[in-house]
Amino acid sequence: MNANSKPSGLDFLLAFNIGIEIQGWLMRFSNEAHNIPKRFHPPPVVGTMGSAAACAHLLSLDHSRSSHALAIAASLSGAPMANAATQSKPLHIGNASRLGLEAALLASRGLEASPLVLDAVPGVAGFNAFYEDYVLQPLGSPDDNGHMFLLEEQDMGVKRFPAHLGMHWVADAAASVHKLLVGGDHGTVSPAEVQEILLRVPQSKYINRPFPESEHQARHSFQFNACSALLDGEVTVQSFTPAAMMRPDLLALLGHVHVEHPHDNLANFNHMYAEVQVTLVGGDILRGRCDTFYGHWRNPLTNESLRKKFRNNAGAVPPSERVERLIEVLEELDRLGDCTHLLSQLQ
Amino acid sequence: MNANSKPSGLDFLLAFNIGIEIQGWLMRFSNEAHNIPKRFHPPPVVGTMGSAAACAHLLSLDHSRSSHALAIAASLSGAPMANAATQSKPLHIGNASRLGLEAALLASRGLEASPLVLDAVPGVAGFNAFYEDYVLQPLGSPDDNGHMFLLEEQDMGVKRFPAHLGMHWVADAAASVHKLLVGGDHGTVSPAEVQEILLRVPQSKYINRPFPESEHQARHSFQFNACSALLDGEVTVQSFTPAAMMRPDLLALLGHVHVEHPHDNLANFNHMYAEVQVTLVGGDILRGRCDTFYGHWRNPLTNESLRKKFRNNAGAVPPSERVERLIEVLEELDRLGDCTHLLSQLQ
Repeated sequence: MNANSKPSGLDFLLAFNIGIEIQGWLMRFSNEAHNIPKRFHPPPVVGTMGSAAACAHLLSLDHSRSSHALAIAASLSGAPMANAATQSKPLHIGNASRLGLEAALLASRGLEASPLVLDAVPGVAGFNAFYEDYVLQPLGSPDDNGHMFLLEEQDMGVKRFPAHLGMHWVADAAASVHKLLVGGDHGTVSPAEVQEILLRVPQSKYINRPFPESEHQARHSFQFNACSALLDGEVTVQSFTPAAMMRPDLLALLGHVHVEHPHDNLANFNHMYAEVQVTLVGGDILRGRCDTFYGHWRNPLTNESLRKKFRNNAGAVPPSERVERLIEVLEELDRLGDCTHLLSQLQ
Repeated sequence: MNANSKPSGLDFLLAFNIGIEIQGWLMRFSNEAHNIPKRFHPPPVVGTMGSAAACAHLLSLDHSRSSHALAIAASLSGAPMANAATQSKPLHIGNASRLGLEAALLASRGLEASPLVLDAVPGVAGFNAFYEDYVLQPLGSPDDNGHMFLLEEQDMGVKRFPAHLGMHWVADAAASVHKLLVGGDHGTVSPAEVQEILLRVPQSKYINRPFPESEHQARHSFQFNACSALLDGEVTVQSFTPAAMMRPDLLALLGHVHVEHPHDNLANFNHMYAEVQVTLVGGDILRGRCDTFYGHWRNPLTNESLRKKFRNNAGAVPPSERVERLIEVLEELDRLGDCTHLLSQLQ
């Protein structure tokens, strides 16, 4: 885009692509980064860098200032995993956007940071401070012949409900057991009929919570999401309300859960799976398995599902006619020249 | 202090003490933290936590909200070392204060983060994400009999000039060689008379810069600070101006520097030393050594030196009569009831 001109819809889409490209590549520099991590929560690490890159485009920064924007963003990146199951987790996401923008604005005013921040210089850590297995790799340039953007190679993963991504596998596996329970000879699920619930999920300490004590812990509990889907057939925004969390049937089911970590079930969003096996008091065993949940990049949401999610989430704030108008405008964003009206609608 | 009352001078001093106490203890949880580090720059790590603790006091937060303020601050902490020799280093310091205040304000509105953030829970890193050798230690309470605050045990270290703290050892050692050169039989220092300059300093990659290319690299170069002090007898704010950095005599001296890292010279502000050994063309050898620079906590600045530094630094912004008035008020801060006027003077 030209300096000083207002960004068009296409500029916003290109900035989005640039942000995804940068944060996607940075995740490929470390196994620690793209496995379910133990030290740093990825969104405030790679996300701050992606936001800085996207904002550098929107601010029309030149090559040098864009490089400083990324380097400054590295100083504003990172948040420990322990806060990822608390109210502060959403703050990580918002801060990634905000602080990336701040880095780009500082760079636009001439602030400088290390041009080596992405290199792994021995004894002087840059971005690799966040990882123990960081290996810098050459990036292709969009000017190269045949350059493929990450978004061309891999679709977006989108959560259907607000919980840790890993919960979607166990929820879909448990939902398929729910169908067997209610559709088969067993009628509706009664916890009194359940003898054992066995979950086969990856080993990851921070999403293994037998009895979550808060809404945010529930969003990071294989056990809670499996039992909610067994009981209700799905997990939704409402599953995490205090009323839903305190249901005696749900608490009773939680008491029957056992967890196993098969060696072939890696804590990695590209390779993990979930199995749910319910043993009934009579001895019958019902099994469900999910390799690719609905919403995963290998099985992306349809536009209709995306619209449904947007209506559910956005509906709490602006009036519904404005939500519908936003959907119309966003679906034609690539053809929108002047975004002033759209931006004012979002405020 | 009471909620809703305006903080007095004593409240600010107590908040400062609380901030130092928290960040000082956190540095004692890791050798990596209190040695000259390689991964994370300490001020934006422990400083953000100290600022959150100080601000929690000023905002009269209760125990639980103070704990959340520290936990939220952990999500806003940390910046890689690579930016510590750039224009963004001062940003780290300002951000530590700003983001600690932000964490305390968020906690005051009820935002929650992990109560285990300071514990080292295996597989779910909290504050220990920033260190590989973090060992939690019990802290004394100010209510305990005989509790000693860190500020009672150890004075403040204060830099005399704006450079990495380690530069102060090498500058003082070189200044003592300068005295021998100008006061002895050798007259003023002429680079033509110098055959070799040997520095015996700790090993730390990011402050070992033979030919710094920017003001901020010069502030992180044993070689530059040694040669400036050899030439001028001291290092000052002016030493880092482009005119001073480009002097042919200085560049000539830099060409004669060799660096050694004795095994007993640890990269640790409590144990390090600097030796400067200048061999003249005629074969004479002049030696200087500094174990404790003037300004180190074992050899703190006098009030007069502190005033001089404050006048030099603050003089660039407010008019000098306001600087003098600020000095008078700050020296009696413990007796100041209403700080409104002081705060407006600082804006």
